[in-house]
Amino acid sequence: MDTYLVLFSLLGAIIALLFAALTGRKVLRFSEGTDQMKKIAASIRTGAKAYLKRQYSIVSVFFIGMFILLGILAMLDLLSWFVPFAFISGGFFSALSGYVGMNIATRANSRTANACRGSLNQGLRVAFSAGSVMGFTVVGLGLLDISLWYLLLKYAFQLPVEEITATMITFSLGASSMALFARVGGGIFTKAADVGADLVGKVEAGIPEDDPRNPAVIADNVGVNVGDVAGMGADLYESYVGSVISACALGVVAFNKVPTVDRISALAIPLALAAIGVIASIIGSYLVRTKEDASQSSLLKALRKGTNFSALLIAICALPLVWFILGPDFIGIYFAILSGLLAGVFIGMSTEYCTSDTYKPTQKLAKTSETGSATIIIGGIGLGMLSTALPIIIVSLCILLSYFLSGGAEDTTRGLYGIALAAVGMLSTLGITLATDAYGPVADNAGGIAEMAGLPPEVRKRTDALDSLGNTTAATGKGFAIGSAALTALALIANYVEKLQQIDPEIVLDLSLMNPTVLVGLLIGACLPFIFAALTMNSVGRAAQSVVVEVRRQFREISGLMEGKAEADYASCVDLCVKASLKEMILPTLIGIVVPVVVGLVLGYNGVVGMLGGSLATGFLLAIFMANSGGAWDNAKKYIESGHFGGKGSDCHKAGVVGDTVGDPFKDTSGPSINILIKLLSMVSIVFASLVVKFHIF
Amino acid sequence: MDTYLVLFSLLGAIIALLFAALTGRKVLRFSEGTDQMKKIAASIRTGAKAYLKRQYSIVSVFFIGMFILLGILAMLDLLSWFVPFAFISGGFFSALSGYVGMNIATRANSRTANACRGSLNQGLRVAFSAGSVMGFTVVGLGLLDISLWYLLLKYAFQLPVEEITATMITFSLGASSMALFARVGGGIFTKAADVGADLVGKVEAGIPEDDPRNPAVIADNVGVNVGDVAGMGADLYESYVGSVISACALGVVAFNKVPTVDRISALAIPLALAAIGVIASIIGSYLVRTKEDASQSSLLKALRKGTNFSALLIAICALPLVWFILGPDFIGIYFAILSGLLAGVFIGMSTEYCTSDTYKPTQKLAKTSETGSATIIIGGIGLGMLSTALPIIIVSLCILLSYFLSGGAEDTTRGLYGIALAAVGMLSTLGITLATDAYGPVADNAGGIAEMAGLPPEVRKRTDALDSLGNTTAATGKGFAIGSAALTALALIANYVEKLQQIDPEIVLDLSLMNPTVLVGLLIGACLPFIFAALTMNSVGRAAQSVVVEVRRQFREISGLMEGKAEADYASCVDLCVKASLKEMILPTLIGIVVPVVVGLVLGYNGVVGMLGGSLATGFLLAIFMANSGGAWDNAKKYIESGHFGGKGSDCHKAGVVGDTVGDPFKDTSGPSINILIKLLSMVSIVFASLVVKFHIF
Repeated sequence: MDTYLVLFSLLGAIIALLFAALTGRKVLRFSEGTDQMKKIAASIRTGAKAYLKRQYSIVSVFFIGMFILLGILAMLDLLSWFVPFAFISGGFFSALSGYVGMNIATRANSRTANACRGSLNQGLRVAFSAGSVMGFTVVGLGLLDISLWYLLLKYAFQLPVEEITATMITFSLGASSMALFARVGGGIFTKAADVGADLVGKVEAGIPEDDPRNPAVIADNVGVNVGDVAGMGADLYESYVGSVISACALGVVAFNKVPTVDRISALAIPLALAAIGVIASIIGSYLVRTKEDASQSSLLKALRKGTNFSALLIAICALPLVWFILGPDFIGIYFAILSGLLAGVFIGMSTEYCTSDTYKPTQKLAKTSETGSATIIIGGIGLGMLSTALPIIIVSLCILLSYFLSGGAEDTTRGLYGIALAAVGMLSTLGITLATDAYGPVADNAGGIAEMAGLPPEVRKRTDALDSLGNTTAATGKGFAIGSAALTALALIANYVEKLQQIDPEIVLDLSLMNPTVLVGLLIGACLPFIFAALTMNSVGRAAQSVVVEVRRQFREISGLMEGKAEADYASCVDLCVKASLKEMILPTLIGIVVPVVVGLVLGYNGVVGMLGGSLATGFLLAIFMANSGGAWDNAKKYIESGHFGGKGSDCHKAGVVGDTVGDPFKDTSGPSINILIKLLSMVSIVFASLVVKFHIF
Repeated sequence: MDTYLVLFSLLGAIIALLFAALTGRKVLRFSEGTDQMKKIAASIRTGAKAYLKRQYSIVSVFFIGMFILLGILAMLDLLSWFVPFAFISGGFFSALSGYVGMNIATRANSRTANACRGSLNQGLRVAFSAGSVMGFTVVGLGLLDISLWYLLLKYAFQLPVEEITATMITFSLGASSMALFARVGGGIFTKAADVGADLVGKVEAGIPEDDPRNPAVIADNVGVNVGDVAGMGADLYESYVGSVISACALGVVAFNKVPTVDRISALAIPLALAAIGVIASIIGSYLVRTKEDASQSSLLKALRKGTNFSALLIAICALPLVWFILGPDFIGIYFAILSGLLAGVFIGMSTEYCTSDTYKPTQKLAKTSETGSATIIIGGIGLGMLSTALPIIIVSLCILLSYFLSGGAEDTTRGLYGIALAAVGMLSTLGITLATDAYGPVADNAGGIAEMAGLPPEVRKRTDALDSLGNTTAATGKGFAIGSAALTALALIANYVEKLQQIDPEIVLDLSLMNPTVLVGLLIGACLPFIFAALTMNSVGRAAQSVVVEVRRQFREISGLMEGKAEADYASCVDLCVKASLKEMILPTLIGIVVPVVVGLVLGYNGVVGMLGGSLATGFLLAIFMANSGGAWDNAKKYIESGHFGGKGSDCHKAGVVGDTVGDPFKDTSGPSINILIKLLSMVSIVFASLVVKFHIF
């Protein structure tokens, strides 16, 4: 039975990839527009490719180093020999997800701009299709790798199941490491370029956004592709495989004491659930269509219809899955999946409430601009911190429900398996939610191209409408990413504890909060997301300042630039961002990999669990706080620009721009990277567990 | 023996209060200066008294309500009958500490200004003496109450020792509740007035700080007294008694299995240690004197000499205390005390490094102002978050050292007792450290009076020198407050666990991080400091905006005000701040009291411990982050004002002012209140433990 389920998930993977390929061909059939549009798109593409090439070559040094390190541990018999290879493959596929997304996005941007010359709906179709390519590539590659590795290890090498899941977690570690590099590097690039372009262009020179006279304008548009597209692709690939694999691994141990359930079936459930999600998402994506003269709110409705229908379909199909595979005695596990699915929706709603300018909080935030930039900063930080309350309650309820409904009261591991499945349930709609999320950056780029190519203002207005809609769907997407990260991180901690028992069944854990090593671990773990956020923010600040200096230099030295008679040296700004972001991405990522090993060697495994708990708690809080503060500032500025409190150019608007600029690294660099960090810490701990069991001070 | 030790601490209390009274008389003997200075000082005093009167009358409603509630629980036999009275007395003495401090500060401000007409050293002597009055009143009242309650319950009522410590913890709960009201209310008042005065005065009207034409100028000076003096007094009273009592309570159970040590002796150790601290602080304070022509750095040296000598004296005297009372077998406990004493010093040093403009971090922060307010905000947040690393490492080391050196490996409770004693060790120098801390606000007020009374510029220069020195010592003081709060909170969690065992020895706790109720508790607890910080920041924002509106109204409606021909209506601004801050202080404080009970009733006691652990971790981090970001912005602005990056009036300075304004509620409202919050949560949990044991859902 389990082999059929795994083959079913392989089938789901193939369907997803086929769908992505067909959609991609459809996108490429649209026209790229005028020659100037083609030229601009080409330079964005060149910049993005140059960045990714350099990034991959730097990251490959890290991967080779880790490969050797893991190889040494395998030689010392502390790890299986599959581990180094699994690690490499995870990194490769994560990078591939980002690359494919970037590739289609940099081809769809000019096509979207061109389609917007026709109508809003045509623009939506191109952009949303490009988003779909990315969404279904991510889930397709994810499912493909997991099921192929499973089949390979089981049938070709006939490994015991514990070793299969242990190997798959290393695969996930590779994906997470790659994702963290991509998110941090891309996030620094995009925000350095954005902040740098805005600070000199908008604030000092007083020229509009995406003005071709601004030397950083191409870098800004490249940044969107390498950060919001390639970075997000790698990130969500990591989230997806992380949640599925952690559920698989817990499934193997959750039914040890239940004779009626084959533990391999429990392993296969998350895979099958993910495959159901793929198919439901494809069906849902066909519902995303509107009339030619659609308003913005009806566009949003169309997107919502697609995602909600997919979620409903999954909710229906998961019931027979659990009923027939695990049996009616364990139907509670279905409700765990359902609670995860619902929690994702609710977190998305709470994020939207806190950050959309159609609701009170952001409108009130916009009003604080009346007393200047200081009060809008205080207000935004307050709003973001307060906005952590609802997601915390939702995730807490989801944890309690999925744990106890899955039978955690009788068997702890089964409860934890329920939590892991809740995460998979939350991410099961990823194909379509990522599509609705990833089309935003495409629309943003289309707007840039429309502006630079001097298209008529109504085109820019349409791309702006798409972009602003993208902000709303991005908020929902972030909710999913953060919520699932918390649940997956929790499942990974449970996996760590299981792993310790596998290494040495005699180990007696003392995970009590009254154990000082646990407590100290908790404090250190809680501190990590703060350090990480600080480092990435400072990186953005430093990189942005170097962009500012370069843009100022060009304004000063290139005569005729401001009059539009001479062309700016776009490539030098791109190059600057490439260098700065690649340099700055290394330290934060290394922290995520080195600290768990050091903490383990000093405090022992109890301390590691404390560290993971602490980083989970503050990581979740900081990620939500930063994402929501940033989102609210962004939309408060847009709200002012739409004519409130004096509109564009007023003092309130200036204060709004300050808020938005502060929010940029919050929401697009530090916040989303933290999601990856908290999982990476657990995975590193799991992979190096045998080392820590052998050597530790306390 | 234990009775002698308690009598010794009573003696210490009396010495401290006598010393405070004598020093107070000395201060009052100085001249108040010109009639105008007297008049200004009188209106500041009137404002501060009016605020405190209203605050106490509001808070007394809360105290009466809690008295009745605790009385009902006592009737239901869930608490002892002493508890409601202990609760009231703790609140009363905490309020009294704040009142005495405010009283001397509002009398010393004009005297300091007048003394500064003579020389810097004369000014220092008056201000430092006023600080000493506050410092020694706080420690004197704290020790007095603890030892009196102990003697009363032991000899008059002959209660068993567990009941004595349980009652004393309620006393501490009263102190913490009062302190939270005082810190939050005072913090909102002072920052609403400060931000409001700056936003209209400095930024819009372009008049200097403390200009008598600014209608909010008196409110601003009143704010310093009710926030930085009365609030801080109540706060540190709470810290002091909290640390001593939690150590006493753990002492009672720490030596249960050791026949050679009387457990009452272990209870008496923290009391005796505190009394040693009082005497050492008094001796140290005599060393604080300089030559007439002293430079600022030699002033700082003089202050340092006093505190370091006191610390050394305590380190020497604590050795025989432990040796003779507990015996040489337990001399490790002495090293626990020592590690606390040292940790306090190191945290203070790290705080100073991160926030003083004599070091790189703040100088670099000042440089980010070159690219505008957005980059200085990003830089300051990054700096603050990064600055959590060192204190976390220091406190972690202190926890591990004090736990294991006290014998935690053999007996957990003894290790926790060691941690509690480390907190007492850290706070043992409070008499003198608080004196060096509390003189800052007096100097600040003196500067205001000098400005408003039109004293010659060299006077203002001298008060500014004192004020800026006060910023440095305040940073050290904050380090102590935060570090001791973390250790005390930890000791209180241990007390909670002990309390549960006392209520029902059959209770089997499952405090493992893999228990979902613990985990959910952890998430909720971790969220609380965020919510709390958000609420208090938003309160400051709202209150400041109402001040802005009022100041703008007066500038508009009172003709001749800007020309200095008409007088502003100072009282209306004071009144506004009083009303706004008292209204806004209620919700955050109630959260600290209600949430632990609700969490207990829902998640049970395991969940409560999770909540306390979570709030300890994020509370500690947020408190340091906010204090250090705020401090660094403040000093970066001062660094710019001293002539760097264009100096006063430049664009960089404007950006610096924005940073400083954002930092105001960070460092003086939200940050310091969080210290109290994390202890209050534990105390509420302890007092309502019997209720939670009887009724809970999970």
